[in-house]
Amino acid sequence: MRKTHPSVPATPRQGLTRRALLATTVGAAALTLNPEVARGQAAPPEDTTKKWGRLPNGLGARSPAESPKRTLNLPTSSRTPLQDLHGTITPSDLHYERHHAGLPVVDPRTYRLLVHGMVDRPLTFTLDEVKRFPAVTRTCFLECAGNFFGTREETTPQDVCGLTSQSEWTGVLLSNIFNEVGAQRAATWFLAEGQDAAVMTRSVPIKEVLGEAMLAYAQNGEALRPEQGYPVRLLLPGIEGNASVKWLRRMKLSDQPFMTREETSKYTDPLADGTAREFSLVMDARSVITSPAYPQTVAKGFVEIRGIAWSGRGVVRRVEISTDGGRTWKPAVLQQPVLPKAHTRFRYAWEWDGRPTEIVSRAVDETGYAQPDMSALRAARGRRTRYHLNPVTGWTVAADGRVRFAVERVRV
Amino acid sequence: MRKTHPSVPATPRQGLTRRALLATTVGAAALTLNPEVARGQAAPPEDTTKKWGRLPNGLGARSPAESPKRTLNLPTSSRTPLQDLHGTITPSDLHYERHHAGLPVVDPRTYRLLVHGMVDRPLTFTLDEVKRFPAVTRTCFLECAGNFFGTREETTPQDVCGLTSQSEWTGVLLSNIFNEVGAQRAATWFLAEGQDAAVMTRSVPIKEVLGEAMLAYAQNGEALRPEQGYPVRLLLPGIEGNASVKWLRRMKLSDQPFMTREETSKYTDPLADGTAREFSLVMDARSVITSPAYPQTVAKGFVEIRGIAWSGRGVVRRVEISTDGGRTWKPAVLQQPVLPKAHTRFRYAWEWDGRPTEIVSRAVDETGYAQPDMSALRAARGRRTRYHLNPVTGWTVAADGRVRFAVERVRV
Repeated sequence: MRKTHPSVPATPRQGLTRRALLATTVGAAALTLNPEVARGQAAPPEDTTKKWGRLPNGLGARSPAESPKRTLNLPTSSRTPLQDLHGTITPSDLHYERHHAGLPVVDPRTYRLLVHGMVDRPLTFTLDEVKRFPAVTRTCFLECAGNFFGTREETTPQDVCGLTSQSEWTGVLLSNIFNEVGAQRAATWFLAEGQDAAVMTRSVPIKEVLGEAMLAYAQNGEALRPEQGYPVRLLLPGIEGNASVKWLRRMKLSDQPFMTREETSKYTDPLADGTAREFSLVMDARSVITSPAYPQTVAKGFVEIRGIAWSGRGVVRRVEISTDGGRTWKPAVLQQPVLPKAHTRFRYAWEWDGRPTEIVSRAVDETGYAQPDMSALRAARGRRTRYHLNPVTGWTVAADGRVRFAVERVRV
Repeated sequence: MRKTHPSVPATPRQGLTRRALLATTVGAAALTLNPEVARGQAAPPEDTTKKWGRLPNGLGARSPAESPKRTLNLPTSSRTPLQDLHGTITPSDLHYERHHAGLPVVDPRTYRLLVHGMVDRPLTFTLDEVKRFPAVTRTCFLECAGNFFGTREETTPQDVCGLTSQSEWTGVLLSNIFNEVGAQRAATWFLAEGQDAAVMTRSVPIKEVLGEAMLAYAQNGEALRPEQGYPVRLLLPGIEGNASVKWLRRMKLSDQPFMTREETSKYTDPLADGTAREFSLVMDARSVITSPAYPQTVAKGFVEIRGIAWSGRGVVRRVEISTDGGRTWKPAVLQQPVLPKAHTRFRYAWEWDGRPTEIVSRAVDETGYAQPDMSALRAARGRRTRYHLNPVTGWTVAADGRVRFAVERVRV
């Protein structure tokens, strides 16, 4: 035995087998300390076994050594730090935000939801009344339609596609509410309206969403967070995030879409021929490698490539990884259970030989849809469309181990 | 249509069908406001659509109207507010705590894990080295062996069994670590030692846990919380919580248990005949109705009975509900997917006729084990055993709708 006490470290890699640990991943993000710890002001005790520790308390808090943060693009959005996350759940305080006029503070005591239009019984519901309906729970992602950025090598996973997050949501099936008000057979669309200062509105096709749509009032076990629409939001699994209207105050049923501001000025995709895709609601299959990624540095030997994949059309069937810039592809392992319309964690065991290369991921969903290259997206939709860009992305690995965003792959 | 604007509420129940909403659940917990909101000091604006809202920020926070809290039993524990939760995930800052000498602050830069004893290659690992191993993610509950309280009618779900919580955990399979150090064939037990001031130690039988045991460094997507053993804890799905040693600093492999203080003075169950159950590690199947529960009041008509069930032996096969004090039982609906060794949300549609009664739940797991009555537990184990009490529990409902803990059911 090399050392008898763990506070005096051995040099562990000397004894490690080739099988698992030939290399050190020097992760820039792995040991980021907050300034206080770095300055020694919050230095932990030398030997934690010699002094009674802190007592239990009403609410927990993160270790001072961990400080994940959303990055901001004010006044409209914040992005989830995908590179700091493990598993599939996004902590509620790190869920991405995209608001159209900031974040209203809604009093649950005065909250009301009106459902009217082509219904037999127009009704207004209080929050308690919404919660009295039979409840359902499901885990799924929400993603902003405009979730692609990548023009510089110094781009992190959070920068590239941090406008996607995942929660376990609980609420009421929309179909229960529609039964209650007596939705008429001729109603094919409904308007969802938020009570933010944008009075955010979207038209939603009923048939396409009614099987799964929810009014969500809980997220990751607790009440919905204000940024996610407290006290009640619409939740449309697999559909672009803006249609899952937050702070939902009104639904109006109709036999046609409402052509609201947000679905004409925004969230319509101009095409090269001068026409536009309207109501392009479903989020296509996507994947991103979250580690290794910029600004990490890797060393020769074993590196587990980790990331998430998702599809608005159902389950992710497979994720393929290339470690040679797209010439050859091999399947990643998908963490079970793989849930429909949900972030799916993938992992791939890579032995880096120290030569410069590019690592790339691509997702295939249960419909057979394969995440496209940017060139295919541009060919199909031209250069003016800003939404629903889900290109295959990758990371270059230099001879010195530095990892950077593969800009050339998306610069077409 | 009764009203054209949701800020002027209609009386919604007038129009509601018998099918769903005959009654009002007056939930004491449903609209608990924090003191500031109650005093009007944090009053929301009259019309949230007329003023730009708060901007996105780096970290989210709860609505001021929601303030779930762990209750404290100092200096040793805090309990999860099960009655405030939805779905199956426990928010990380509401996960129960049970410490033996408080909560150490561990510096991730100096963290070391020693693995030695009956191994070919004793090794010390840094945190980065632990994270380099292939990662796995799984959702499961953790429960304290001493998770039963209930002597008064004024007992909430949090009081009864708030020492159980659930997270999505990510880490390294223990089997990978044991492969790395070359665990010897003769090794049948290992010691797990924490670096808290209790130097918490437990002996764990290798064969029984090796298929699923993990070293966890992440919880609900992010780094483990300090209360849960940051930076690394042992995680033994289905096993009593204290064996999943937090702030893990040492594992020693042996061919026999170590008979540590915590497994002789505690966590051994004295029986009526003077002998004791040792290493009673597996948590038996259990269920609890979390709504309606004390201090809620219900009204005649539709009430969805909601709760959680779990088993340390695998999946919950079914949960049975009685709304007549245990005379007749009907199956609850289990929220899918039902995961092994995991909190499982159950729901049951009840139409209360307004007469006094008692609502009760009992769980049956995949092994056929049925949650026992307290009388059966006392008959099998006597009155001195304090751990592994998982009796069937229920709630009385008075004619005025007041819900109280059914004390008589467990007073045997």
